[in-house]
Amino acid sequence: MEKLLRINMSAEGGPAAVAVPVGEYAGLGGRALTSAVVSKEVPPLAHPLGEDNKLVIAPGMLSGTIAAMSGRCSVGGKSPLTGGIKESNSGGQASQVLARLGYAAIILEGRPKENDLYKVFINKDGVKITRDNSLKMLGNYDLVEKMKCEYGDKIACMSIGPAGEMKMCAATVAFTDMELRPTRHAGRGGLGAVMGSKGVKVIVLDDAGMSARAPKDVEKFRAANKAFVDGLKKHPVTGEGLPAFGTNILANVINEAGAYPTHNFLWGRFIGTSKISGETEAELEKARGGNPTHGCHRGCVIRCSGIFHDKDGHYLTKQPEYETVWAHGANCGIDDIDEIAVMDRLDDDYGLDTIEMGATIGVAMEAGIAKFGDAQAAINLIKEVGKGSPLGRILGNGAGMTGRAFGVERVPVVKNQALPAYDPRAIQGMGVTYATSTMGGDHTAGYAVATNILKVGGYVDPLKPEGQIELSRNLQIATAAIDSTGMCLFIAFAVMDQPETFQALLDLLSAFYGIGMTGDDVTALGKKVLKWERDFNAQAGLTKAHDRLPEFFRKELLPPHNVTFQVSDAELDSVFDW
Amino acid sequence: MEKLLRINMSAEGGPAAVAVPVGEYAGLGGRALTSAVVSKEVPPLAHPLGEDNKLVIAPGMLSGTIAAMSGRCSVGGKSPLTGGIKESNSGGQASQVLARLGYAAIILEGRPKENDLYKVFINKDGVKITRDNSLKMLGNYDLVEKMKCEYGDKIACMSIGPAGEMKMCAATVAFTDMELRPTRHAGRGGLGAVMGSKGVKVIVLDDAGMSARAPKDVEKFRAANKAFVDGLKKHPVTGEGLPAFGTNILANVINEAGAYPTHNFLWGRFIGTSKISGETEAELEKARGGNPTHGCHRGCVIRCSGIFHDKDGHYLTKQPEYETVWAHGANCGIDDIDEIAVMDRLDDDYGLDTIEMGATIGVAMEAGIAKFGDAQAAINLIKEVGKGSPLGRILGNGAGMTGRAFGVERVPVVKNQALPAYDPRAIQGMGVTYATSTMGGDHTAGYAVATNILKVGGYVDPLKPEGQIELSRNLQIATAAIDSTGMCLFIAFAVMDQPETFQALLDLLSAFYGIGMTGDDVTALGKKVLKWERDFNAQAGLTKAHDRLPEFFRKELLPPHNVTFQVSDAELDSVFDW
Repeated sequence: MEKLLRINMSAEGGPAAVAVPVGEYAGLGGRALTSAVVSKEVPPLAHPLGEDNKLVIAPGMLSGTIAAMSGRCSVGGKSPLTGGIKESNSGGQASQVLARLGYAAIILEGRPKENDLYKVFINKDGVKITRDNSLKMLGNYDLVEKMKCEYGDKIACMSIGPAGEMKMCAATVAFTDMELRPTRHAGRGGLGAVMGSKGVKVIVLDDAGMSARAPKDVEKFRAANKAFVDGLKKHPVTGEGLPAFGTNILANVINEAGAYPTHNFLWGRFIGTSKISGETEAELEKARGGNPTHGCHRGCVIRCSGIFHDKDGHYLTKQPEYETVWAHGANCGIDDIDEIAVMDRLDDDYGLDTIEMGATIGVAMEAGIAKFGDAQAAINLIKEVGKGSPLGRILGNGAGMTGRAFGVERVPVVKNQALPAYDPRAIQGMGVTYATSTMGGDHTAGYAVATNILKVGGYVDPLKPEGQIELSRNLQIATAAIDSTGMCLFIAFAVMDQPETFQALLDLLSAFYGIGMTGDDVTALGKKVLKWERDFNAQAGLTKAHDRLPEFFRKELLPPHNVTFQVSDAELDSVFDW
Repeated sequence: MEKLLRINMSAEGGPAAVAVPVGEYAGLGGRALTSAVVSKEVPPLAHPLGEDNKLVIAPGMLSGTIAAMSGRCSVGGKSPLTGGIKESNSGGQASQVLARLGYAAIILEGRPKENDLYKVFINKDGVKITRDNSLKMLGNYDLVEKMKCEYGDKIACMSIGPAGEMKMCAATVAFTDMELRPTRHAGRGGLGAVMGSKGVKVIVLDDAGMSARAPKDVEKFRAANKAFVDGLKKHPVTGEGLPAFGTNILANVINEAGAYPTHNFLWGRFIGTSKISGETEAELEKARGGNPTHGCHRGCVIRCSGIFHDKDGHYLTKQPEYETVWAHGANCGIDDIDEIAVMDRLDDDYGLDTIEMGATIGVAMEAGIAKFGDAQAAINLIKEVGKGSPLGRILGNGAGMTGRAFGVERVPVVKNQALPAYDPRAIQGMGVTYATSTMGGDHTAGYAVATNILKVGGYVDPLKPEGQIELSRNLQIATAAIDSTGMCLFIAFAVMDQPETFQALLDLLSAFYGIGMTGDDVTALGKKVLKWERDFNAQAGLTKAHDRLPEFFRKELLPPHNVTFQVSDAELDSVFDW
């Protein structure tokens, strides 16, 4: 990972790629690298779809090594959804492959003059960029099949569906999984639209002939990896819950906590939860020949992803994740897991963020466009997006635009990005993260659920404002660092609870880079990344007025606990005072 | 004007009106009053369509007197379009009538719990609020006819069309003119949507039994008014150009200056200008029995408004204004004045801002939704808005949303409000006003065209950055004051060029209120208003990043002068340093 691959889509004579030394970005990976490049190279007032924005795709610091869980790939740029900096990371195969090919990042720059579409193929011999307008408006599934025919089945793809081509704010960058299906996504913030604005439909990676990145201290690295894996396996969340039931094990937990947003954040419990819970989902998958225990990339030992078959036993989609099941399910009053799986498949194929789309449909239902609970209507709305009809253009640009288009006041967004599956009134630490994250409404940016609900890393009462600022602050710092390593965020459960697992992570980094990484170094890295992001956002016009939840969370009581969001504005403004 | 009429739409048992003393707002009128109330009473982070926003309707300080030109009425609130404070003022009859009824302002507060529509009738005996869902989705023309049947033809109406009911960001508050037609509009910033969110369809005013407001010093007031009128009549702009040809006399002038934006701000001259110029328009009106020289309210001596008949000699709409003819004409490549007049009529009927709509259709044409020059397609797009179809929901929410929905980068908005009919590259003082006004893209907020092009109040070269900051600053201050008096902004031509006419304005204010008003007092008033507005906007999250033109104005050369916008960001940030 000693080089950056800069691809200039504006170059005279057509797009041109050049590999350059990593230079000032040496030692950075994942989110640290994407946010460094964006904050240094993108003018904060650049139009997100304009020639001055850049799309940065960076494997993590440990990606491409034999370290377990190191397969997250960060995608960064200025977000067309939030107007601020964005890092969205994905599982799948690409991170490992790209790192093994020796690239610290691919940076898409400029914009083609004509409305052409390109594919980029990268292997050990170099980079080939080909104009291919036959790919126009292909869904991710058909696109990947086509790439398999052209390049064989040892590849990894990063691609956009029709939503990205139409430059929608809910458009994702899709990553193929171990089965070479486009099921993992850098979903949030509309980075697929940025890729679409660059005219890049797909990046195909082939690491044949390359080998795993070599650590400085091989023995120490191996030992650290073993300790790390042991730690993950012995923790109840990463060793039992997630492997057995996937992320959707949370549905019953969060519903029980009264924090499972239903009917566009009207209530905190959903009567149909048992029909769409992780337990139900896993049972169904096993009965139909799917698989609830499966990794999204080689080297995963948690294996929280899965495979969902339809009623006839045929592959339909990957196991819909907790956030997806909530967004398209409970949030819209829908309790049919098969219908939810259909929506998941459509989102993956069109290249749409399931969280944004579910929240958007919830707002559309509040506007009366469809009835809460009507799964077929919800499916039809997603199909409108795929068609790019005027209604689809509204929905595909997210909950904020949908609320504005239909004059709806109750729109669950922060910085115009839809909130995920935890009501901030019943998990107030989550509310602090939603409000203050550099990313807009985002759960992964500082997952307070861990401590508020799962009692990982201690306990802070979720229904009270006390202690939430410190909790969210520490989590946001730690997350910014973890997102830079290429590690899956789910390692945090074990790392927060088990000092020896945290030490193993430090040892992995130390052994790989031949340095002495401490907990303080991790904190310093996280703070540095957040500062870059905050500075970019400030210059882009985001202020403390944007570090706020929509006002209905302060005004409307959320049943069953009948709470409002209680953390004061002054406290919110202190999150980044460290 | 010693009382405020507060109408609480949330009151138990239904909307309730109460007249209260003007109190701390005494002595304020027009924009000074709307901005004072909004900045003191509306939480800056309130949802514009929520119960905490207020719609403030305030006659000017001299409205309801016999002073010429004093018929402007300010409407204020938090704008759903810009997210900042908004004052939009209108001609028509209501300002005089409301002032004579003794109200310094009507303040609509709260929001009805049910989706009901109300009419408000105000006369000398008090206020009557009636639920009337039979008015739903009526166009302004039919609505006013209905009000005439109910209340007679001595009334003045302020109303919303379907766009306001649908809470669209381009929705206006319509004001009836002397012929009791809904042709004058508080057009900008979506205040019609705020009125719609309050459930108020129409406010009907009847000042029978009331008389003109009495000045403290009657003789001095009369003398000042005479001097004021003499000054207006002798200035070439207010005494000749505007009466003869209306506002659209500017079309040839601005086109000649190379500042007439065409094809969505691609070029600075339009080949079809002569077909849609004020001269052509006036000739046509005379030939068809319309009237190019006509006032929009009693007491107007400039008489720049007019009446437009169709080919069969029947009334179609008021004389389309310069901004409208540009927006629906040159900006969209359309050179047919009859088709433009049809669009003007539709906008007035639906209650839509013609500037926002024309700019929006320009963006839609850039997106390929219709072809530049296709008038019938443009008319159909406006009809989509009236229908509230999904496409209409996009367009009715303005150029910003339309650009986002269709992934267009060249979107001529500042603070999400569409730019009017002067390219900021060829009239750089106008660019400073667009960028920095508290109102978003707005020409009236500091009309630098006067000095850059018309050489009123001196001359500053329009193509160079030098001197534009000071020009825009002084104009913005003066405008904020004039907008508070109830005076039509067009008095500024005479006031800027003729010291004795400015003195006559001061004398009018002094004689009416029994004070000694000086030029410094006017400046102080303007600065005070701007400070309230800037403070509100800052708390609402608007920063210097929002005081910028879209980047294409800095990057693309505008023919025929081949200029870009040259005023630096640092200079823009100095506009309010006084």
